[in-house]
Amino acid sequence: MSNAIGRCFVVTSFGESHGSCVGVLVDGCPAGLTLNEAVLSQDLQRRRATGQPGATPRSEPDAPRIVSGVLNDTTTGAPICMMVDNLNVKSEAYESLADTPRPGHADYPAGVKYGRFNDPRGGGRFSGRITAGFVMAGSVAKAALATVGIEIFAHTVSIENVMAASVVVADARQAWKKNPLSCADPEAAAEMARAIASAASDGDSVGGVVECLALNVPVGLGEPVFDSVESVVSHALYSIPAVKGVEFGAGFGLASMRGTASNDAYAMENDAVRTTKNDAGGVLGGISSGMPIVARAAIKPTPSVSMSQKTVNLATGTDTSLSIEGRHDACIVPRAVVVVEAMMAISLCDLAIRAGVLRKVIE
Amino acid sequence: MSNAIGRCFVVTSFGESHGSCVGVLVDGCPAGLTLNEAVLSQDLQRRRATGQPGATPRSEPDAPRIVSGVLNDTTTGAPICMMVDNLNVKSEAYESLADTPRPGHADYPAGVKYGRFNDPRGGGRFSGRITAGFVMAGSVAKAALATVGIEIFAHTVSIENVMAASVVVADARQAWKKNPLSCADPEAAAEMARAIASAASDGDSVGGVVECLALNVPVGLGEPVFDSVESVVSHALYSIPAVKGVEFGAGFGLASMRGTASNDAYAMENDAVRTTKNDAGGVLGGISSGMPIVARAAIKPTPSVSMSQKTVNLATGTDTSLSIEGRHDACIVPRAVVVVEAMMAISLCDLAIRAGVLRKVIE
Amino acid sequence: MSNAIGRCFVVTSFGESHGSCVGVLVDGCPAGLTLNEAVLSQDLQRRRATGQPGATPRSEPDAPRIVSGVLNDTTTGAPICMMVDNLNVKSEAYESLADTPRPGHADYPAGVKYGRFNDPRGGGRFSGRITAGFVMAGSVAKAALATVGIEIFAHTVSIENVMAASVVVADARQAWKKNPLSCADPEAAAEMARAIASAASDGDSVGGVVECLALNVPVGLGEPVFDSVESVVSHALYSIPAVKGVEFGAGFGLASMRGTASNDAYAMENDAVRTTKNDAGGVLGGISSGMPIVARAAIKPTPSVSMSQKTVNLATGTDTSLSIEGRHDACIVPRAVVVVEAMMAISLCDLAIRAGVLRKVIE
Amino acid sequence: MSNAIGRCFVVTSFGESHGSCVGVLVDGCPAGLTLNEAVLSQDLQRRRATGQPGATPRSEPDAPRIVSGVLNDTTTGAPICMMVDNLNVKSEAYESLADTPRPGHADYPAGVKYGRFNDPRGGGRFSGRITAGFVMAGSVAKAALATVGIEIFAHTVSIENVMAASVVVADARQAWKKNPLSCADPEAAAEMARAIASAASDGDSVGGVVECLALNVPVGLGEPVFDSVESVVSHALYSIPAVKGVEFGAGFGLASMRGTASNDAYAMENDAVRTTKNDAGGVLGGISSGMPIVARAAIKPTPSVSMSQKTVNLATGTDTSLSIEGRHDACIVPRAVVVVEAMMAISLCDLAIRAGVLRKVIE
Repeated sequence: MSNAIGRCFVVTSFGESHGSCVGVLVDGCPAGLTLNEAVLSQDLQRRRATGQPGATPRSEPDAPRIVSGVLNDTTTGAPICMMVDNLNVKSEAYESLADTPRPGHADYPAGVKYGRFNDPRGGGRFSGRITAGFVMAGSVAKAALATVGIEIFAHTVSIENVMAASVVVADARQAWKKNPLSCADPEAAAEMARAIASAASDGDSVGGVVECLALNVPVGLGEPVFDSVESVVSHALYSIPAVKGVEFGAGFGLASMRGTASNDAYAMENDAVRTTKNDAGGVLGGISSGMPIVARAAIKPTPSVSMSQKTVNLATGTDTSLSIEGRHDACIVPRAVVVVEAMMAISLCDLAIRAGVLRKVIE
Repeated sequence: MSNAIGRCFVVTSFGESHGSCVGVLVDGCPAGLTLNEAVLSQDLQRRRATGQPGATPRSEPDAPRIVSGVLNDTTTGAPICMMVDNLNVKSEAYESLADTPRPGHADYPAGVKYGRFNDPRGGGRFSGRITAGFVMAGSVAKAALATVGIEIFAHTVSIENVMAASVVVADARQAWKKNPLSCADPEAAAEMARAIASAASDGDSVGGVVECLALNVPVGLGEPVFDSVESVVSHALYSIPAVKGVEFGAGFGLASMRGTASNDAYAMENDAVRTTKNDAGGVLGGISSGMPIVARAAIKPTPSVSMSQKTVNLATGTDTSLSIEGRHDACIVPRAVVVVEAMMAISLCDLAIRAGVLRKVIE
Repeated sequence: MSNAIGRCFVVTSFGESHGSCVGVLVDGCPAGLTLNEAVLSQDLQRRRATGQPGATPRSEPDAPRIVSGVLNDTTTGAPICMMVDNLNVKSEAYESLADTPRPGHADYPAGVKYGRFNDPRGGGRFSGRITAGFVMAGSVAKAALATVGIEIFAHTVSIENVMAASVVVADARQAWKKNPLSCADPEAAAEMARAIASAASDGDSVGGVVECLALNVPVGLGEPVFDSVESVVSHALYSIPAVKGVEFGAGFGLASMRGTASNDAYAMENDAVRTTKNDAGGVLGGISSGMPIVARAAIKPTPSVSMSQKTVNLATGTDTSLSIEGRHDACIVPRAVVVVEAMMAISLCDLAIRAGVLRKVIE
Repeated sequence: MSNAIGRCFVVTSFGESHGSCVGVLVDGCPAGLTLNEAVLSQDLQRRRATGQPGATPRSEPDAPRIVSGVLNDTTTGAPICMMVDNLNVKSEAYESLADTPRPGHADYPAGVKYGRFNDPRGGGRFSGRITAGFVMAGSVAKAALATVGIEIFAHTVSIENVMAASVVVADARQAWKKNPLSCADPEAAAEMARAIASAASDGDSVGGVVECLALNVPVGLGEPVFDSVESVVSHALYSIPAVKGVEFGAGFGLASMRGTASNDAYAMENDAVRTTKNDAGGVLGGISSGMPIVARAAIKPTPSVSMSQKTVNLATGTDTSLSIEGRHDACIVPRAVVVVEAMMAISLCDLAIRAGVLRKVIE
């Protein structure tokens, strides 16, 4: 296992779905940031299951505790250890899964890799619950980036076959406040809710796409050749369980364009160098160009479905089938929005420190 | 700059497009591999411009030299330093670009970030030429993985709007031998060649998609939560200039599926646990599942086009336009196939060592 | 700040002297180890001030809490987060020190480096109290190493000018049980206690030397050229506040020997290759030789002395003097023994994993 | 093997004693430094065997080649690959050693660890010859540090039982120019030369101690708790073959002092905070204090002695004896002075970049 990410802003995840807590340790955070439990709570609330259609009935208050690195509501530069307790734990439903791996889940490869000592309760380290830790680290990263004007936010752009219309930045920024789907297009949001409800009533699940923007990123983040913006951000985004695709700017669409169409022309705008469109997603040669960084993450449908699925019995070596009980989300996309935002913030915060944009002490 | 990748199989890139050489240093390679210049040459030839439609007229022999780490055609476990010389260098064409950044290129952000000491000749460190080093490291990684039966190969699946038909594994494996496009579908290959020729004759360029497969990967590669297979492989693939999208298995397609469709059902096959399809691309919970690992990289059109483009004059702060002279590829996708293969191999080799699948000494 | 050490067995320290807790996060610990609070308590008790001559009156119960990574008293392979609470906190005494740095303390350079956001209470991150976290990580490392037969223990070999006589291994192993000084030579121990008492009564302090042995280390730990046993172990030992010298085997004594005297001759012993003496301290060419690894750490006298000392007033830029109040140890050497042991164990555990001696799952 | 050191100024060593070359790759060097082969040659000449008493008859010109990262005698910020060729290679003498490990050498543990693929010629990676690469990286580091006024130099303070008298800084700085022993005390130097000659004529060898100073280091280098100045510098110094002890300031001497004696009192000096002595060696709490950083490395006698020594025959499992032929130094201390200087420079350069003292582009 490797539970740390980042070179200068180092985030280490710990905790299990049904252990005493899930948490995160942030080493390398600049000193002088305002930070307290209230700052963390806002993002944690967005990750909670409450209110979102098709969300798991497991309800956790997710009240954060900061146990180091903060004095008088201000970061000191020391490592910040943060955690939320696990209170609503119901482990029995998982015990029968040991021999019949759930399709689409980590059960089988994790079982082979980690063997009999692995914590199986509620998915253990493979549960989406550990992203509560990611979100707390993301809140810290966003606060750090905000000190140099960088703003990061994500929104839902598709659920199953429902695509949101293109929106202006101001609307994308407000998406998470507008509806439980964090979708900036209200009509699409309504349709998405119906798609999720339909899947849920079938005992099935759906996926979607989350887009994340970083605004006011100065030119120069990214450390080519091997730590380009795309390399570092995609590394972080792929740490989110269920992400199976990551693209920047026009992404896969660029593959079918011609160079004259895909290139973003430069133009002066109020004495600043800008591009007239942003198909590059704000990154050229692996380095931020000064335009918004735009990344999209494809999130597969939740693999836990109550419909019967074919699997194998590892004990007997025979084929069998499985209906998954327990408490699951029919669609995790709305809850993943703030997680995508967190991982984007964590990775850009690391690059901002490495580029000298973000200093160790906030003046 | 950060020019090293990998934690156990550490690859450091060096050299400039118009310096004396481009090279790579591999630290952590297992001892006991057969390695000599002939092994490296085969992959280097696939990366060369010769024969591929729309390729740059710059012709380099790319004869590799191994200067350390190998004794009697066998790796010793010591760091392996490999290089190819730059012989066909023609730097003049680039000098006028300092003030008028080429759209879609690293010129502008690299100029801001690295300033006046940066080597501008032929793109310096931002040239695709440095991927010759990646390819040599990839040859070493493939040789290492082959000792435990893992096989890696890539092929072209689209160029501009031409999509290759699905092929069986045996055909994908041979694709690079079949035609200069490394496309397993011969009819598509012919059409792709026409698309490239058409763009070239317009002074334009095209992109495409490369797919890479890793076969016989045992269950258990990948170090979640932050060094999943997807995180580590995408980090590596995004180091290739021009890659703007990376997906695994059905990738972005999964976002519009339902869980019952996207989940790969398990079934026993000759006493082995297999899935009946592979939409997960061989990775579950960030860990290899035993099925082929399938990754796809979207490659944008070469930004160097001879058609006139809008840009700015950084010295005067005014808008201007630019026609790029010099020697360029109208499509780098065919040359990128072996580079994608290399980065996939480098990243999986690192994970194989970390998982204990690949030992430090080949018995 | 950099609060993580290790490449495979990664230990991250957190917490402050007068914050809510001090703790440590261990990532990369093998699965299958027996671990619970009782295992941690034994070493923590050795680090506590109770009973040792000249120890600080601050008394902390140091009851450990394990909040992740352990299930049914067994490590799961997931990150292990451990902490002890700070209960006996008395911060007032430190506040006047902001402008008059204590000689021999981190006050002045830390103040310049970390500025006004640094946590000054009780020394914050610079307090010896954070070594409680090191000790917990060391307990885990010793438990891991014990599974392959490696045993680690430290003992006091000198305090001020009192040198312990040479002892056999069996006595060194028991030293910490014999007397509060962890000195295997009982007569020297009594003299050491007098030396400490004498310094304490003068309002002064004393230092000493701790020796640490690792037994049954197989041949092959150490990753030259840059991660030799000596490099990795000394890196770890120098993380202990107050360590100013580290040597292996005959150490500085080797500098005045001739080669024929310093070389350890080989001889067969019960079919095993051994050396007839061990002036190399069990390390040759940076790699463990199979003989006991022997390291010694010089620990300077506690800089906190109540006698008046010359310092400066940073606010006025003038010379002044200072008498340190507060609660301090007249000699930290006895309490440091288990900390030296911990850092040796942490570093060797990392090297054992890297060498493949220690596997990720304990069978 | 682990052949890279440093986090921001990353030095990777490659090459073998009897391979085609030994070299080093420096990634993370600031752009804008003056660098060319002449800069490297001066330090390489100091490492060469010529002229020093008791030096090996193997004579290498050690003419450096820089193959990347430098344009117009100036570093570009790209990785710098540097090498010296091996020309005077005579491998036969080593072949008989495979079964009879030389006492005090890496032969036995390296043979067990790296097995049959290891390059045995001339010690391979374990030869002191690879320090030619360290020295080139050190020259780059010293040039980088010089841009912010930091100066680093080492000198010999003892050989066998001959101790040099204390000297003023100006003399220590010139030591390497004064005599082939790099000893600032001319009388001691003459005696040292006699000690070496005496050992050489006996077919024996001697060790010694090298001291290294870093002047004008600003307050604030060092990243506690785990990357203190002492941790990072000792890690680097212990990478030098034959170093068995490292201490800072009064080092082991501090262990027998009282706190009032060991503490360095502060005093204002021309409006600057200074200490009136420097027993801490310029480091407090792991952070540079603004006083000179002073480190000492104990170097064991060269293990290669021509006198007969007891060893074992690994093939037969029996005791035997060995007289080492080949070309060896009777004392490597004088040649090690510039290597100690290099490793100190490399480690402080890394810390200077991490502390923000040294920027990525030299203005």
